[in-house]
Amino acid sequence: MPKGQTPVAAADGLTTRARRNSPLVVVHGGDGKGKSTAAFGLALRGWNQGWSIGVFQFVKSAKWRIGEQSALEALDVVHRETGQGGPIEWHKMGSGWSWSRKAGSEQEHADAAREGWVEIKRRLAEQTHTLYILDEFTYVMKWGWVDVDDVVSTLRDRPGHQHVVITGRNPDPRLLEIADVATEMTKIAHPFDKGQKGQKGIEW
Amino acid sequence: MPKGQTPVAAADGLTTRARRNSPLVVVHGGDGKGKSTAAFGLALRGWNQGWSIGVFQFVKSAKWRIGEQSALEALDVVHRETGQGGPIEWHKMGSGWSWSRKAGSEQEHADAAREGWVEIKRRLAEQTHTLYILDEFTYVMKWGWVDVDDVVSTLRDRPGHQHVVITGRNPDPRLLEIADVATEMTKIAHPFDKGQKGQKGIEW
Repeated sequence: MPKGQTPVAAADGLTTRARRNSPLVVVHGGDGKGKSTAAFGLALRGWNQGWSIGVFQFVKSAKWRIGEQSALEALDVVHRETGQGGPIEWHKMGSGWSWSRKAGSEQEHADAAREGWVEIKRRLAEQTHTLYILDEFTYVMKWGWVDVDDVVSTLRDRPGHQHVVITGRNPDPRLLEIADVATEMTKIAHPFDKGQKGQKGIEW
Repeated sequence: MPKGQTPVAAADGLTTRARRNSPLVVVHGGDGKGKSTAAFGLALRGWNQGWSIGVFQFVKSAKWRIGEQSALEALDVVHRETGQGGPIEWHKMGSGWSWSRKAGSEQEHADAAREGWVEIKRRLAEQTHTLYILDEFTYVMKWGWVDVDDVVSTLRDRPGHQHVVITGRNPDPRLLEIADVATEMTKIAHPFDKGQKGQKGIEW
């Protein structure tokens, strides 16, 4: 991306440095691929800056351990052993969050999602991380498992310098309204259209 | 992503296993964010599968060392020291490719791009890697620095089981035609529109 050029002059009264350091709400929506992978790609950048990163995997988590988790956990080990990069925590909802150790059935998913959001709110208030990835959180919002207005006001009013990335199809318009960056991943061609199923290394 | 359901039945006569293991050409286009970050997110999945990964950074490379490079190089070290994951090579064109050590001026970029493509062709023929990331290669194709038909036929006829991801705006229609997965990243909202400049950890 070319640096330095911005389409319009800033009208927010901030210095360039203050704007540069704005904490961002980033949304990856759309029916195409790349929503989660791009979020985890951002985690690589944050790790390199030494940021504390919290990944909260909401829906896919019950199904399988994805490759990103192993790779980011390996980077967390690098951080702890050598000091390079930053710490990365990976929490998944599927069989109970890692901090609660609670086993969850399909029916308990809504409760687990709410519990996850309460924990994220607590961490945002305490400024635990610099980067939060709420993977597939749009579904949790869409299904009414969490209150959208609560999510929006919590993100909008969060203290300090905390970036939040939310992924999933059909992000709520209220979420998009407070997003600083929102990208729609649109499918142009897809092997599923030809009857292709997912494969390891590519889909997980 | 839900597993198991495919919109149409496969008509290619392949077994499920053969289809599952198809080598893919993946294109990330569009004017939105996430094209490169999603490619590097795929690298995390491939690393976890133990794949050999080659990253070829074509345009941005001259400007700065991006966070993904440091993070993926750290994962390569993890692989070499512990055997976890796979090897990752990162080559950038900016000041000469890492295998050629040649210093390049702005004027030599076209030559360097061609040299990079020749090396990638050589590696595809020798089946050096399982995953190739050709970052911002669409520009090199668009600017005529490489022959698009040569790129397309090389990718289409590549031997063995090699995945190739190409990123950048305005991918050539001939490239899209042979792509198995093509995603367009479209900007919904962007801080640059408010005069926001890039910041470390987010843009690089």
